[in-house]
Amino acid sequence: MLTLYSAPRTCALASHIALEQSGADYQVVRLDFRANAQREPDYLAINPKGRVPALVTPGGVLTETPAILAFIAQSYPQARLAPLDDPFAFAKAQAFASYLCSTVHPAHAHGVRGYRWADDPAAIAEMKRKAPQVMSDCFDLIEREMLAGPWVLGEAYSFCDPYLFTLTGWLPGHGLDVARWPRTADHFRRMSEDPAVRRVLAVHDTAAT
Amino acid sequence: MLTLYSAPRTCALASHIALEQSGADYQVVRLDFRANAQREPDYLAINPKGRVPALVTPGGVLTETPAILAFIAQSYPQARLAPLDDPFAFAKAQAFASYLCSTVHPAHAHGVRGYRWADDPAAIAEMKRKAPQVMSDCFDLIEREMLAGPWVLGEAYSFCDPYLFTLTGWLPGHGLDVARWPRTADHFRRMSEDPAVRRVLAVHDTAAT
Repeated sequence: MLTLYSAPRTCALASHIALEQSGADYQVVRLDFRANAQREPDYLAINPKGRVPALVTPGGVLTETPAILAFIAQSYPQARLAPLDDPFAFAKAQAFASYLCSTVHPAHAHGVRGYRWADDPAAIAEMKRKAPQVMSDCFDLIEREMLAGPWVLGEAYSFCDPYLFTLTGWLPGHGLDVARWPRTADHFRRMSEDPAVRRVLAVHDTAAT
Repeated sequence: MLTLYSAPRTCALASHIALEQSGADYQVVRLDFRANAQREPDYLAINPKGRVPALVTPGGVLTETPAILAFIAQSYPQARLAPLDDPFAFAKAQAFASYLCSTVHPAHAHGVRGYRWADDPAAIAEMKRKAPQVMSDCFDLIEREMLAGPWVLGEAYSFCDPYLFTLTGWLPGHGLDVARWPRTADHFRRMSEDPAVRRVLAVHDTAAT
């Protein structure tokens, strides 16, 4: 049994979808970010970073979305969530996940959690003002260079797809319409219609308990 | 033959060290960031992100340090740069690399490239002011929770070690003395004495041509 620590509308959604698609035996524990549950001692004992996702496995705790996604893909190879037999193809999947976690996710965070990098309210407001432009630049690159189509890596579905779906879902929060990126919008629509994604969204979006 | 595009004092150093330790047949092309060579059309055709590292392989181009490090480890398994036979142990290595690329590297970038997230000079100055504190928080967590010792993952050396070594080397630029983190300082010293690291530093730190 795996246990995923998650919170609504966070990047933990990507790991949740991958778990649902993997066939793994898992449960989800939702943290109430409004009550700052991710900073409580009980949770910090699981994940000292005080963030989600964290995946509790029989071998120990894993954090960081790209690592969790690759772990799920390698542990449940029959789900074919990554090209596991070709180091270059696997690295391409990892490079995509790494771009989302190191560039797109921080771009988003400047719109909602600028206090991580500045204390002055004016600076935080300035980051928030620019965040839509930085997010747009990221999605321009994804649309033009990264999304091979129909799935991120091409014909084969992979863990890159729920991860892109998750971050695409953050665009409206920045006042951005995904329709501006037609191929990404089509990817988002197809992901939204996936039965496993629908099952996950039905529980993921429920208010944290 | 692999070709690594690099620039002095960037995170490309980690991939350079891993290549040197892997036994791979490789060459390094250094970009002159002062001349903005990373934004020239010739380079953008290789890496549309306009950043380093980029690794040109027979199968295509790879970007993103965690992906490149894992590719080197998987392609040259005899160098034992990652625990390749255990998905959980491999994920722990990946989680460490992911933390460096998604949290520590952006923390650093706020001190030197705040213009990525704000246009107002006052906001950029405020990010630069706070960057040492954010970097300190990251290294507190690394020292306390992540660096198993003697190497990042414990007894076994891995690609996590050159990556940590690279980012530890950025601390003085923020006015931070690594001695504040004794275990990290010891790791940095041992890495500095590694013959492969010394060979790489001898060429990496040479002025870009």
